[in-house]
Amino acid sequence: MLAAKPVVAPRYTNLIEKLPATVPFVGPETQERAMGAPFKARIGANENAFGPSPAAIRAMQEAVPDAWKYGDPENFELKQALAEHHGVPAENIVVGEGIDGLLGYLARMLITEGAPVATSLGAYPTFNYHIEGFGGVLCTVPYRNDAEDPQPLLELALARNVPLIYFANPDNPMGTWHDADTIQHLIDGVPGDALLCLDEAYIEFAPPGTAPPLEVANRRVIRFRTFSKAYGMAGARVGYGIAHADLANAFNKVRNHFGVNRMAQAGAVVALSDQAHLAYVQEEVAKARQRITNIARANGFDALPSATNFVAVNCGRDGPYARKVLQGLVSRGVFVRMPFVSPQDRCIRVSAGTSSDLDLFEQVLPQAIAEAG
Amino acid sequence: MLAAKPVVAPRYTNLIEKLPATVPFVGPETQERAMGAPFKARIGANENAFGPSPAAIRAMQEAVPDAWKYGDPENFELKQALAEHHGVPAENIVVGEGIDGLLGYLARMLITEGAPVATSLGAYPTFNYHIEGFGGVLCTVPYRNDAEDPQPLLELALARNVPLIYFANPDNPMGTWHDADTIQHLIDGVPGDALLCLDEAYIEFAPPGTAPPLEVANRRVIRFRTFSKAYGMAGARVGYGIAHADLANAFNKVRNHFGVNRMAQAGAVVALSDQAHLAYVQEEVAKARQRITNIARANGFDALPSATNFVAVNCGRDGPYARKVLQGLVSRGVFVRMPFVSPQDRCIRVSAGTSSDLDLFEQVLPQAIAEAG
Repeated sequence: MLAAKPVVAPRYTNLIEKLPATVPFVGPETQERAMGAPFKARIGANENAFGPSPAAIRAMQEAVPDAWKYGDPENFELKQALAEHHGVPAENIVVGEGIDGLLGYLARMLITEGAPVATSLGAYPTFNYHIEGFGGVLCTVPYRNDAEDPQPLLELALARNVPLIYFANPDNPMGTWHDADTIQHLIDGVPGDALLCLDEAYIEFAPPGTAPPLEVANRRVIRFRTFSKAYGMAGARVGYGIAHADLANAFNKVRNHFGVNRMAQAGAVVALSDQAHLAYVQEEVAKARQRITNIARANGFDALPSATNFVAVNCGRDGPYARKVLQGLVSRGVFVRMPFVSPQDRCIRVSAGTSSDLDLFEQVLPQAIAEAG
Repeated sequence: MLAAKPVVAPRYTNLIEKLPATVPFVGPETQERAMGAPFKARIGANENAFGPSPAAIRAMQEAVPDAWKYGDPENFELKQALAEHHGVPAENIVVGEGIDGLLGYLARMLITEGAPVATSLGAYPTFNYHIEGFGGVLCTVPYRNDAEDPQPLLELALARNVPLIYFANPDNPMGTWHDADTIQHLIDGVPGDALLCLDEAYIEFAPPGTAPPLEVANRRVIRFRTFSKAYGMAGARVGYGIAHADLANAFNKVRNHFGVNRMAQAGAVVALSDQAHLAYVQEEVAKARQRITNIARANGFDALPSATNFVAVNCGRDGPYARKVLQGLVSRGVFVRMPFVSPQDRCIRVSAGTSSDLDLFEQVLPQAIAEAG
């Protein structure tokens, strides 16, 4: 086989040769460089513009002079704090470089070439990136009423005998959600030896009764949470999973043990302890969601109900039209994104920004609509 | 096949089932928790106790309030700064979550189950961890005179037709090094479509004439550098590779695009610009190396010459004896480590600490030796 190939180093695996060099999301900085100007409102990546807890900011700043020390590879203090917060043993928690990093490790543990994986058409692209990166084959069911649809997903998982199922509650990019009973039913219905990857990145923004109780004895589900959204620390890169102890421990076979930034660990512990700041963020986000909804309606658009820190604004026509509206916003300095697939792509996705972010959104949306024609 | 297995979720890949849950290095915090007391001198992980540039500290602290924003997934500014610093195009640089993180991505791109990989017996364990994590089979040549040995390594690589060769210059854990001509000869000798992973984590501590020129047109070598050592930012997690543009770009197929902490990116740019601080660190490290050597000799031990920020202290007998000495130090609050394999494990590895770190080392070493018998 080698003799038939020209000798061009390096010798990538067959799988890697086939993969595209890609990025699940183009960063706003990349767009700013292309435009030659910074965005005036950064409301496209569901970042939390209300910021981290002031106490967490201080904790990170105070940790900076110790940046010469590696962070604790066991993330011990953070796991203890999370264990106490969630009322589960620390052995059921795995901490990693954001949910994105943990999704990569999870895919690596379960996916070989050709393995089918069940998700929803238009759900989180970075999950798809990791699955395809390990040679998995995405099998999808459509959204129903702009929400991920549990029952067909379970039927698909059973029919295809998948090792892994993805479900986000609340959903990104639509902001929709299911109640705890529905999600418990989904968990209970996971077939055979499959694992449900339940992405709850936005759960702190959802109404009470959205998350079913944590059941760490259940081998068929892993719950992912993050400090990137409600805790306002996207740039720090700290996510975590809650799962059966065997699964939480299995990450130790593959993870970058020293991968979590030391300042981020210190900040996350303090952020978790500042639940008053979390409550403030939740309140501001709820107000911002309402304002985005009002702005959308004032412009003849609809807005989907949301249990997240963003709102899917239904532009009322098709994907190309919504994309024109989006481009009108982007060209006016408002960073927003939109769903990738139809029919969800009739919407644009607007993050719960500050008052001044939304002032600008309110100001330029009519211009963007006029331009879109 | 499924019917023959009991249904116990999740369905790990065969490779993952075989892997141990492990950690390449136990963190000092883990040892502190076990001992119930903090270390008084942290000179075991080759961290840079002289710390990051004060300007880099300020840059990281000033970036903290913006922790709610994701870091730039392209690491654009840092790549630009590195490109300028090294006189290579930015397209030849890949930035990641420490060299450790990049080694994992590299292993993933080149290693399938059963693939042989050439390294030296006792070289960097985290490289081995990643290779075995993707099912690779480590093939080794012994150290010669406590140094990695290029020619037998190349012969092994040719004989086994490996896709990947590991070589560290300077070496960790021994601190030894080869001159640029020898390394250039190694690079030029890489056979067929193999890739040389040249780990230069400690290069800034080495004498001039240790690193051969960067040749980014060469497809058979990738050079790894880091902000963890000479730049004193181990806890920030920023490493980078310099390689042919095709290889640098191939990391985009597998990496965690948003994985590098935002504050760390900001700090690394400034750290790189503060070459005066680097010179200060280099000077202090050289003094500390000399002092460790003097302390070793005053206690009847030998010390290896070092081009790193640590010294391998030859305890003069075998591994079990050196381990006793190490345990005597550790039990007295001095965190040190030692090589894992014979004959290198007749040494303990002492990082270039501050004066007070080395005062304590000097004070307790005789006690540790007396206790070791």
